[in-house]
Amino acid sequence: MASITFSYQQLATFTESIFKKIGCSDEHAAIATRSLLSADLRGIDSHGVARLSGYVRLWEVQRVNATPDIRVIHETPSTAVVDGDSGLGLVIAPFAMQIAIEKAKQVGTGWVSVQHSNHFGIAAQHAMMALEHDMIGIAMTNASPLVAPTFSIDKMLGTNPICVAAPAGTEPAFVADLATTTAANGKLEILQRKNLQTPTGWVQDAQGHPSHDPHALKTGGALLPLGGDREHGSHKGYALGAIVDIFSALLSGANYAPWVPPFPAYVPMPAQQPGKGIGHFLGAMRIDAFRPADDFKKSMDHWIQGFRNATPIAGEEKVLVPGDPEREYEAERMEQGIPLLDAVVADLKTLGEKFSVDLKL
Amino acid sequence: MASITFSYQQLATFTESIFKKIGCSDEHAAIATRSLLSADLRGIDSHGVARLSGYVRLWEVQRVNATPDIRVIHETPSTAVVDGDSGLGLVIAPFAMQIAIEKAKQVGTGWVSVQHSNHFGIAAQHAMMALEHDMIGIAMTNASPLVAPTFSIDKMLGTNPICVAAPAGTEPAFVADLATTTAANGKLEILQRKNLQTPTGWVQDAQGHPSHDPHALKTGGALLPLGGDREHGSHKGYALGAIVDIFSALLSGANYAPWVPPFPAYVPMPAQQPGKGIGHFLGAMRIDAFRPADDFKKSMDHWIQGFRNATPIAGEEKVLVPGDPEREYEAERMEQGIPLLDAVVADLKTLGEKFSVDLKL
Repeated sequence: MASITFSYQQLATFTESIFKKIGCSDEHAAIATRSLLSADLRGIDSHGVARLSGYVRLWEVQRVNATPDIRVIHETPSTAVVDGDSGLGLVIAPFAMQIAIEKAKQVGTGWVSVQHSNHFGIAAQHAMMALEHDMIGIAMTNASPLVAPTFSIDKMLGTNPICVAAPAGTEPAFVADLATTTAANGKLEILQRKNLQTPTGWVQDAQGHPSHDPHALKTGGALLPLGGDREHGSHKGYALGAIVDIFSALLSGANYAPWVPPFPAYVPMPAQQPGKGIGHFLGAMRIDAFRPADDFKKSMDHWIQGFRNATPIAGEEKVLVPGDPEREYEAERMEQGIPLLDAVVADLKTLGEKFSVDLKL
Repeated sequence: MASITFSYQQLATFTESIFKKIGCSDEHAAIATRSLLSADLRGIDSHGVARLSGYVRLWEVQRVNATPDIRVIHETPSTAVVDGDSGLGLVIAPFAMQIAIEKAKQVGTGWVSVQHSNHFGIAAQHAMMALEHDMIGIAMTNASPLVAPTFSIDKMLGTNPICVAAPAGTEPAFVADLATTTAANGKLEILQRKNLQTPTGWVQDAQGHPSHDPHALKTGGALLPLGGDREHGSHKGYALGAIVDIFSALLSGANYAPWVPPFPAYVPMPAQQPGKGIGHFLGAMRIDAFRPADDFKKSMDHWIQGFRNATPIAGEEKVLVPGDPEREYEAERMEQGIPLLDAVVADLKTLGEKFSVDLKL
């Protein structure tokens, strides 16, 4: 599939202009751009600039508020609930994470549950904000229902990702960012384009039977929780997705389970919503609230080196540490640019024409 | 396989007597018994009284201290590190969880990382301590290395379980307690007894190839992280096990990764241990530090009912909510008793004879 490569700065300039055109303040446009493009940099192409027109469509149907009054509606020394006022999750999540960090400075840890938000991009970008403060960062979010719990035909949960970022010393940070499904939707799209079948345990069909059809979601099927089926532990993936839903939405007052608003603007909103918008959960733990940060970081280096030096299975190059592939993408793409599929470039050009913003090559 | 059924009280009396015989105080013996037998009640037979002689053997080789000075060695308003002084994890974990709860009362949340401990039984027992305080409880622990990360031949992690317990209103609490592997060791033992093969994705052999041998661990093989292999998301199960290790041991100063002490007393201790004992991580979040507890519990009821009423796949009875099977076991076994396999009964009788304690029928 043909692609065109853009520099980070080209895409950032374009994206920031579009966010300003829909009414975001300069500050919000810059934050939203950084959140969104972190996905392109880290190789999570499904969550980056390819979604920009999707966010704009949510604004067009008045589901995204470009000038939100993001505020704390309840707090204790170590917790807060943030009302995102229907703004971009790309802006609300960093706001909430900053509060978690400030609370961690004061009392050791900070935990912020967010209601009334929208899609926040990739979890890693927010969790990693903690690293420079010698804190462990945690980020999770619920999402629109695409996932069938074990034994269920109905789609009851989103891909509900969890990210934990922990600082190391001389080694790069540990950054685990995982959807609680066997495979994320973006991986299905790759197989659709290549006309390939999905491996066992990724999707089920409309009757809940195992399927290998990458289009299964369009015909009433569902993504499967990590594990795939009961025999392979899908009840654990389901439980993890449920935990994310509880922390992100039940604690904050956001919508949960099948009532989470869909990302595509053309999909009707669920009837009888029990909460407000979608929910996130952000956490920060100051390392030295437990142990001197230098001791921890020395141990992390030892831990990371232990895993990287583990004996690989014949045919595999090496054992990876969570965060390794994304960091390699980031270094490469900052240097050599971000390749975008022709279809994504065409979509961005259409968007640019609509708002009189040039997508410069 | 033949079994004999005991009442909870019979097993509790016996277990408490044994713990006292090895030198535990009355209070510690009672707490350890409650922790241990909660596994038998909840149907996790591998982690209950069947392990009692294993704990005693650890005491015999002086790896368990029956009279530990369990103490806080560092703290902030929302965090603490506990040194378990090599005591029973069955006693240390409830001590640490109580501290987490007290801190949550004060500042909204409490987080305690534990070093210098031993096996703590099932995570759910400790996490569930939070429920009666209208708090969410979290418990995790690292464990001896039986699990090979994605692409690795070497066993680098334990089954590292995570438990989250959240209170509901009229519905019973949500309790998700999951090893971060496809299947726990106890499930292999069941297949060994029945002379059956393991499903794909549970274990690998000594070369790291997929295996169906339930004895694979005895011949250099390993348990696999939740997901089984890369194509089915094992890098996610690996990342989750790693997160548990970091929270439990890197934050506390316990041993981590392949250096975690083995549970069987006859297995030599790893050379050059980087920390002390094994590590746990306990957390408590006060619901009303986020949102009025009644609102949360009403939402939890709605959430739980939504999942329980989801359309089951043909041939499946119903969609379960995490904690349902264990709660059903507990109700049944409190009423009708706890069946123990003949081999377990024989083991307990031998133990009883050694310490002059009757196992009463």
